[in-house]
Amino acid sequence: MTTKIAVLGAAGYTALELIKILLRHPEVEIVAVTDLHEGRPHVAMIHPSLAARLDLCVEKLSPAEVAARADCVFACLPHGVSASMVPHLLDGGARVVDFSADYRLNDPEVFAEWYNQKHADPDRLGKIPYGLPELFREQIRDAALVANPGCFPTSAVLPLVPLLKAGLIDSRGIVVDAKTGVSGAGRTPKLTTHYPECNESMAAYNLGRHRHTPEIDQILSTTTGKSVEVVFSPHLIPMDRGILTTTYSQPAGDVNEEKLLQTLRDFYAGEPFVRVVDHLPGTKDAAFTNFCDITARVVRNRVLTVSCVDNLIKGASGAAVQNFNLMFGYEETTAL
Amino acid sequence: MTTKIAVLGAAGYTALELIKILLRHPEVEIVAVTDLHEGRPHVAMIHPSLAARLDLCVEKLSPAEVAARADCVFACLPHGVSASMVPHLLDGGARVVDFSADYRLNDPEVFAEWYNQKHADPDRLGKIPYGLPELFREQIRDAALVANPGCFPTSAVLPLVPLLKAGLIDSRGIVVDAKTGVSGAGRTPKLTTHYPECNESMAAYNLGRHRHTPEIDQILSTTTGKSVEVVFSPHLIPMDRGILTTTYSQPAGDVNEEKLLQTLRDFYAGEPFVRVVDHLPGTKDAAFTNFCDITARVVRNRVLTVSCVDNLIKGASGAAVQNFNLMFGYEETTAL
Amino acid sequence: MTTKIAVLGAAGYTALELIKILLRHPEVEIVAVTDLHEGRPHVAMIHPSLAARLDLCVEKLSPAEVAARADCVFACLPHGVSASMVPHLLDGGARVVDFSADYRLNDPEVFAEWYNQKHADPDRLGKIPYGLPELFREQIRDAALVANPGCFPTSAVLPLVPLLKAGLIDSRGIVVDAKTGVSGAGRTPKLTTHYPECNESMAAYNLGRHRHTPEIDQILSTTTGKSVEVVFSPHLIPMDRGILTTTYSQPAGDVNEEKLLQTLRDFYAGEPFVRVVDHLPGTKDAAFTNFCDITARVVRNRVLTVSCVDNLIKGASGAAVQNFNLMFGYEETTAL
Amino acid sequence: MTTKIAVLGAAGYTALELIKILLRHPEVEIVAVTDLHEGRPHVAMIHPSLAARLDLCVEKLSPAEVAARADCVFACLPHGVSASMVPHLLDGGARVVDFSADYRLNDPEVFAEWYNQKHADPDRLGKIPYGLPELFREQIRDAALVANPGCFPTSAVLPLVPLLKAGLIDSRGIVVDAKTGVSGAGRTPKLTTHYPECNESMAAYNLGRHRHTPEIDQILSTTTGKSVEVVFSPHLIPMDRGILTTTYSQPAGDVNEEKLLQTLRDFYAGEPFVRVVDHLPGTKDAAFTNFCDITARVVRNRVLTVSCVDNLIKGASGAAVQNFNLMFGYEETTAL
Repeated sequence: MTTKIAVLGAAGYTALELIKILLRHPEVEIVAVTDLHEGRPHVAMIHPSLAARLDLCVEKLSPAEVAARADCVFACLPHGVSASMVPHLLDGGARVVDFSADYRLNDPEVFAEWYNQKHADPDRLGKIPYGLPELFREQIRDAALVANPGCFPTSAVLPLVPLLKAGLIDSRGIVVDAKTGVSGAGRTPKLTTHYPECNESMAAYNLGRHRHTPEIDQILSTTTGKSVEVVFSPHLIPMDRGILTTTYSQPAGDVNEEKLLQTLRDFYAGEPFVRVVDHLPGTKDAAFTNFCDITARVVRNRVLTVSCVDNLIKGASGAAVQNFNLMFGYEETTAL
Repeated sequence: MTTKIAVLGAAGYTALELIKILLRHPEVEIVAVTDLHEGRPHVAMIHPSLAARLDLCVEKLSPAEVAARADCVFACLPHGVSASMVPHLLDGGARVVDFSADYRLNDPEVFAEWYNQKHADPDRLGKIPYGLPELFREQIRDAALVANPGCFPTSAVLPLVPLLKAGLIDSRGIVVDAKTGVSGAGRTPKLTTHYPECNESMAAYNLGRHRHTPEIDQILSTTTGKSVEVVFSPHLIPMDRGILTTTYSQPAGDVNEEKLLQTLRDFYAGEPFVRVVDHLPGTKDAAFTNFCDITARVVRNRVLTVSCVDNLIKGASGAAVQNFNLMFGYEETTAL
Repeated sequence: MTTKIAVLGAAGYTALELIKILLRHPEVEIVAVTDLHEGRPHVAMIHPSLAARLDLCVEKLSPAEVAARADCVFACLPHGVSASMVPHLLDGGARVVDFSADYRLNDPEVFAEWYNQKHADPDRLGKIPYGLPELFREQIRDAALVANPGCFPTSAVLPLVPLLKAGLIDSRGIVVDAKTGVSGAGRTPKLTTHYPECNESMAAYNLGRHRHTPEIDQILSTTTGKSVEVVFSPHLIPMDRGILTTTYSQPAGDVNEEKLLQTLRDFYAGEPFVRVVDHLPGTKDAAFTNFCDITARVVRNRVLTVSCVDNLIKGASGAAVQNFNLMFGYEETTAL
Repeated sequence: MTTKIAVLGAAGYTALELIKILLRHPEVEIVAVTDLHEGRPHVAMIHPSLAARLDLCVEKLSPAEVAARADCVFACLPHGVSASMVPHLLDGGARVVDFSADYRLNDPEVFAEWYNQKHADPDRLGKIPYGLPELFREQIRDAALVANPGCFPTSAVLPLVPLLKAGLIDSRGIVVDAKTGVSGAGRTPKLTTHYPECNESMAAYNLGRHRHTPEIDQILSTTTGKSVEVVFSPHLIPMDRGILTTTYSQPAGDVNEEKLLQTLRDFYAGEPFVRVVDHLPGTKDAAFTNFCDITARVVRNRVLTVSCVDNLIKGASGAAVQNFNLMFGYEETTAL
């Protein structure tokens, strides 16, 4: 029996990647794609790459209409908008994978501080599983709503959690230097992502102010029981897709590279989408896949990790389908 | 004695490149830069690369105010706007290098047909030299106003004119297949030039409808005395700057590669900025320079030319300074 | 029952893409990958992106050893090498999809002229189907050996054949101006494909001398019954993957865009991997897919076609799997 | 009176950039370019961009022959090779700007440890000024030999020295996370710099083992009197040119952003090629210029600096000409 899918916010890159993955999924049917465009354009008018692959028109639909059609809703909506629609989708009986940040943070005050707005659905916060199956698989299976992680948090949390849990690194003073391709900035044209501006250039941005900071803090804190506050510095790199994250931490006690790598290997043994590698990975190795590649080094008594993900796949739409597979009882790797 | 310069439309890429070239010119002083920004921002707020290089604020000025300050005005304005300002600049005593298409075409009806607007200053058309010194050097020297060429026409006209004049190719049925970097599309963000859309992609655009078509036709026609109508097809290529133009024509009589190359070499002997080369040139050879590199081939009884320019330099701002040098009696190659 | 697969020449890009596609195929098992590396390295040592996806070592094997293990052999070998191995693979009972040019041309003298070597297996030439299912589907089904097409010929032949067959364009004087990403040049480092040389640059290469010329001529000639000789000019573009081919021909009789497009649509009705589109396609629309996107225009009484393929998928490994599916009775679109 | 220049190792990127800068210098004449090519090829055969700009052939010359012709020698040679030639150049009466690492480190044992070879000219070590005029201007003026800095050290040292000297940051535990364009890897084709490998990808490399590490340590130590050992991690980014370096340090005492920025501004007041900026700089701002752009931030009680240089200009050939200008008494900014 196929599962009926709706995709909200269909014009963006995460929706496009999601649809491409779902088209390979043998057990789903996409029954609705929504956006704010006027006049029900065919999806191929908005994403020419979907011509002859998905024969649907983009509609404006109410949450109730969506829930009436779909078993599972992927909400690729801006923060704030999601929290105003998700309750109605759940009320209508749909289960939801939410791509926005609205349900990732446990504390509405932290949300308000970083997103400059009051949360529209504060009572649910703290009860929604964070959609990183490597850490929260069991909670995800039964959830009606899953908060799909941010791309940077995925790349930062996966290498750090095992080392923190094993007591190999100090939870204080962790630096997360992340580099991302430009698709992470979304599909709305801006001067900073105008080709002749950002091509052949790189720059740091939002130093200390990026909204993924509290998300990284929260996952590192809740999974380790320590209060972690990272220094997070993202950089924009002239390429389409890929995040490479380099972290720097103080070792706790006696560590060496083999111990670090073995700890990571043990932690992720059996995980289908984490590859702990000896070499220094390049983002292209993981591009267009749901893999996160991780390695670790010791340099002058500092612990370094390097991790690579495709920001649109493991950092967004691939993770969403992985969560969906868990929620609906499919093989976790289906279509990925 | 230095020449006082004003740059109108300072926010775009051609103005930026122009300013960088003028900063190397020993005989000029930039006295005004204008744009539509509110509040007189420092030029480095708009172009960070100009920090510590040009200490001026961007102003809104009337043509009369500009002409009162400057000896020479470089007008980097949209079509239509130029023709409404240039007469006042000339009346005010300034000489003008105009980057727009407004004074390139001789016939106001052709202008109206391709630019969808009535020309604001039709009486001047046909009397303004086209700013390609290789073809119109003497007219440029004495001009009060010069029409700086389009980037594609420069790359198409320079290889074709000598072969047409020498009777080596047929004037009918010439195909001009041009490929351009993205800076040619200007600095206003649009979906087609949004990095994740155009990076790692290429596409043809405006086939048969590109506004540089009548400009190419006109120069080929007026310099050869024949009525030339080219098939012009531009393509957008994921790189910052550079145009590579491949032309295809029928030979007229008996031609071979050596004869083609020798004709080109003879025609451009002594020209400081045209390099006739034996190898197939790459756009990087001419990038960030005022050179146009040209070669020719015969393939299966068809004549091919390949030419490369930097669309922002020889295709725009470098040509403008070359014209300026001629107009004001400086060494033609100064600052180039 | 699964089909056992061997991949010869595993170190290159076409082999890598092929393996990625085959890993999604539910009915195959890759049983051998070969190359000239010493010491049986794991395939992930050569292609890090295959870590945790294919657990095989790269071996040196004789054709007989390969044929003993595999039902179908994909030979990603240089020209000349293929023709020396394929007969032994066939003798051993394997069926073969050959990526090289060795079995594409019908005439051993034409092969010798363009490839500067005597053909090692001339008696088979002319009897091997050309692996373009859109034109030769029935011959492919029963073949023991299929000649997988070159990337440029696929992009040139698919738009031109229907128009030639319908008598809408003249078979004489066709110009094929093709632009390709750099992966088409293979994986061996050379100065021309060294990043700082070819990035931010474009150039024509092998004008009139590219080895795909006789392949294009042959397919256009055999499918139309006319002797076609095209002017073929490839250009190297700074991007990973994608070919955009623009063709120029004389109309035969009275044509217009709608007639051209309708002819293409009719010809490819029901074809799973050809999309005839109204807009001007970009290569990114077809990237990482097996699609060929085609459109047509009339400009100043010249017929233009624009077509886009991913040179590594529809231009190589995707086509190979499409052929394999036909040969072994699987759904033609499986894994694609 | 012009100064006669020789460029050794002319085939590489630093030599090419150097020649382009020197061609704009009004007081120099390039009299010899050398390399190991056979047969005296014209320089335009090796660098097509120099056609019509420099009419010299590349020669094989002994140090004595070079010194007989040139007043100043720019040695763009591999490490080890420089130290075997420089003594003879100096003996011959030439002054030398050396691009290699051979004379940058004071201690021959440190050199041997990081470069895996015995130093060929150990007695000179410790007596040669490090060619960073912002720190060692007076020593450079009178030097017969200057050690031109590495590209990464320039980008790391310029932001850190003022903060260390002012006691605003702790000298222990400094992290230097650097990102470089691919031209930094030189002009010899390798798999890691093959376009389809490194395009659309990024990776860390030589973590803790990069040879610029001891150079950064030494300059930070000698200018501050403290023993500094940095954690240095370079990353390869898919772009031609540009280094962006992000550093992380512990504040020493009470710091804030304004104090950091003011300290940097005071330190570099009057420096022609350091721009201390409030915004986060992009590498494109400094590309093709001799500028180093610097800013600073405080994030969660950690001090961050971000600096940008063009690795081939301020990181190599521009710095070399700046040094040359100082050595020969020209205006320091000439041609830059």
